[in-house]
Amino acid sequence: MPSHIPPTRENESMPARLARSAATTRGALLRTEDFGDWLAERGRTHTFRVERIPFAELDGWSFEASTGNLVHRSGRFFTVEGLHVTEEGEPFGDGPPSEWYQPIIRQPEVGVLGILVKEFDGVLHFLMQAKMEPGNPNLLQLSPTVQATRSNYTKAHKGAGVKYIEYFVGPGRGRIVADVLQSEHGSWFYRKSNRNMVVEALGDVPLLDDFCWLTLGQIHELLHRDNVVNMDSRTVLSCLPFQDASNGALLSDTDLLSWITGERTRHSVRAELVPLASIPGWKHGDSAIEHEEGRYFKVVAVSVQAGNREVAGWTQPLFEPVGTGVTAFLTRDFFGVPHVLAHARVEGGFLDTVELGPTVQYTPENYAHLPEKERPLFLDTVLRAGPDRVHYGAVHSEEGGRFLNAESRYLVVEADEAEAPQEPPPGYAWVTPGQLTSLVRHGHYLNVQARTMLACLNTSAVRNR
Amino acid sequence: MPSHIPPTRENESMPARLARSAATTRGALLRTEDFGDWLAERGRTHTFRVERIPFAELDGWSFEASTGNLVHRSGRFFTVEGLHVTEEGEPFGDGPPSEWYQPIIRQPEVGVLGILVKEFDGVLHFLMQAKMEPGNPNLLQLSPTVQATRSNYTKAHKGAGVKYIEYFVGPGRGRIVADVLQSEHGSWFYRKSNRNMVVEALGDVPLLDDFCWLTLGQIHELLHRDNVVNMDSRTVLSCLPFQDASNGALLSDTDLLSWITGERTRHSVRAELVPLASIPGWKHGDSAIEHEEGRYFKVVAVSVQAGNREVAGWTQPLFEPVGTGVTAFLTRDFFGVPHVLAHARVEGGFLDTVELGPTVQYTPENYAHLPEKERPLFLDTVLRAGPDRVHYGAVHSEEGGRFLNAESRYLVVEADEAEAPQEPPPGYAWVTPGQLTSLVRHGHYLNVQARTMLACLNTSAVRNR
Repeated sequence: MPSHIPPTRENESMPARLARSAATTRGALLRTEDFGDWLAERGRTHTFRVERIPFAELDGWSFEASTGNLVHRSGRFFTVEGLHVTEEGEPFGDGPPSEWYQPIIRQPEVGVLGILVKEFDGVLHFLMQAKMEPGNPNLLQLSPTVQATRSNYTKAHKGAGVKYIEYFVGPGRGRIVADVLQSEHGSWFYRKSNRNMVVEALGDVPLLDDFCWLTLGQIHELLHRDNVVNMDSRTVLSCLPFQDASNGALLSDTDLLSWITGERTRHSVRAELVPLASIPGWKHGDSAIEHEEGRYFKVVAVSVQAGNREVAGWTQPLFEPVGTGVTAFLTRDFFGVPHVLAHARVEGGFLDTVELGPTVQYTPENYAHLPEKERPLFLDTVLRAGPDRVHYGAVHSEEGGRFLNAESRYLVVEADEAEAPQEPPPGYAWVTPGQLTSLVRHGHYLNVQARTMLACLNTSAVRNR
Repeated sequence: MPSHIPPTRENESMPARLARSAATTRGALLRTEDFGDWLAERGRTHTFRVERIPFAELDGWSFEASTGNLVHRSGRFFTVEGLHVTEEGEPFGDGPPSEWYQPIIRQPEVGVLGILVKEFDGVLHFLMQAKMEPGNPNLLQLSPTVQATRSNYTKAHKGAGVKYIEYFVGPGRGRIVADVLQSEHGSWFYRKSNRNMVVEALGDVPLLDDFCWLTLGQIHELLHRDNVVNMDSRTVLSCLPFQDASNGALLSDTDLLSWITGERTRHSVRAELVPLASIPGWKHGDSAIEHEEGRYFKVVAVSVQAGNREVAGWTQPLFEPVGTGVTAFLTRDFFGVPHVLAHARVEGGFLDTVELGPTVQYTPENYAHLPEKERPLFLDTVLRAGPDRVHYGAVHSEEGGRFLNAESRYLVVEADEAEAPQEPPPGYAWVTPGQLTSLVRHGHYLNVQARTMLACLNTSAVRNR
């Protein structure tokens, strides 16, 4: 019987169902206190050894003669190339003019990062996977249900290799909760994006080895532990359509969008791929390509050996940052509504010039040589904050398939008017988590670090005081 | 006295004020029946003569020796370069694989297209300008209050040359109604975007020569006339935050965003700038660069002579399409809510692979050589439609500063289930004008042709039957 009432544009019930899951800390299938044992047991089943190797020992990877780019002989996976970034001053942008060269990862293919959700006992649970990635300091972390490239899941064997992929693509997939292309690290990837999906399963779902069902409340507890919830999980979780409890904000949504448009307009940035062999300021050794002053990151190579002989080993390049990052939102209440201070960041690999990042996103070692007044804004405020000002703090690592020991301390730090005024300096704006949640429905607004922070803010991992 | 109630995220009153302006067909300052005389009088004040010239007579423009690119000696304005577009098939995209070369305009600088609004007699009026552009078939059309590049308005004389610019940039500007970076023609421009702004003036505004105040209702009447409201005006008008009257739609907003994400993912497109001299399939004559089969467009040159000796003349290249385009939305009601059939289009110059265009956007001449079943979907349905099925029809031209006689017939055509089924073919989706209005708050969703159509839909230029 056809209905004559039009379907509404918004799924009205999902925000409340997400809130219920976030408030539920006892999972129907795995208790949080048993999670550590479960993960350790998964680790024992899949033992891996990761070793640094010189570039010459890479199998299938080599430096292309004409460009010096690091490429795989199949033409697949990714390449390491050079990037030349110039930012112009007046009259095209308001500068200051700057220019730099760096290695960058180029991987044009879009991947799917997908989390499957399903109700158990009336509460949404999220299907998470214990997954080894060679760059993770502890190898095994909690990943989304699916991490796959299109060529992975569409090739000859039609996705037989990618578990649960049928819930995310094709005619029989589940009900879409979120589905958006989001950028990856703009300082390390050239215009890379992944498809972030959350899908609700409509029927029974078999539980395979290495997978577990957790509520959002459980995941938020795990977000307080160092190096447990991987980057891919965090970015997918950031895309959940939570309700904005307050609906108030210092800037209206129109003024916020206008501010972002203005930031994009005042930065005139050109980023061009160039041969890796040609980039000044970087030296090329047998085991690493590194910056001449030892800053930023190195390009290195590893070999991965599986203890379990059924799984083949492999070798690959990875990017290794030179230190532990500090990634933080400063937070203040205005009119009783919590706000965070967003930074409009230029990163050379962004598709669209500027995305919003956390207030602070730096590796302090890279700035240690500078006099205090030339150091990044707000960095010292974050580094100085006593524990009573820290609403959230945990160490997380970035995508372990491309980055080696890329750890950052993620923090939410309370600030006051003297440290972070209500009228912030150019390039910064006070926004609410509700506004960030509206923006993240669309690509190119929040960088991956801001999305990690939003996942923590929205799952209530951040303690309100 | 500080308020303790947080400002709300949305400006609740603006949609109603826009609706009131759209319902007002009698302007407080210029009657619509007097508009034609006013525009003709403006035309007599500024007489211009535009003549085609061979490339050799261009002043300051030349073909660069190493690339064959058409460039200006100052390095400014824009360049005409070559573009090589490849779309991949399985496993990276679902193809069919294709590849082509074409000339393309490269103009990295972002421009401001801004309309100033102000209440007269309690009704919002829009400040429009009578502006000559050499590519317009009738030269003089109605443009936004401001059309300027950043280097125009920030250079030495601080914007003295750009009238009303102070309402759009700088600390004293008005209240923002809309402000978003939108793409220009993806088939003719390489990743070009302009800042589309609507700003409400907070105080008195002097009325200068060549400018007039019109209500939205008046502008909608003018949108029924051929070649009056220029493209820059139409795209800015499309960004107005109208209310969605119905709030219902066949696809939920989440499913619509997911469909767009899926379209972006299934198209694997690479677009690379190449030297203009190297592109196959195009021949280079003294007065035109044109396609070997006479399709698509030509690159030509014109000289502009002012009748009024106080204004200097100039020469410049223009792109000239080979025929009049047909740009149309098919429309149907579902559940009593009007929908239009959007097409996810790949255009080589888009920043982000795919944007939504009208159902049909073609120059029929380009496809006349093909058998019927290979012709573009829905084109014949539009061409066949009798007048009783045409809810809207007018000829508009594209940006006259870059395109010569680039006219299209814009149409809204009623369809039925046989012509346009509720389950449309891949690459098409039924969406409501309300959904398009939500999308157009953000860049990279609606192409410039879809935005022209949305301006007509939202100002009620389209008759509902």
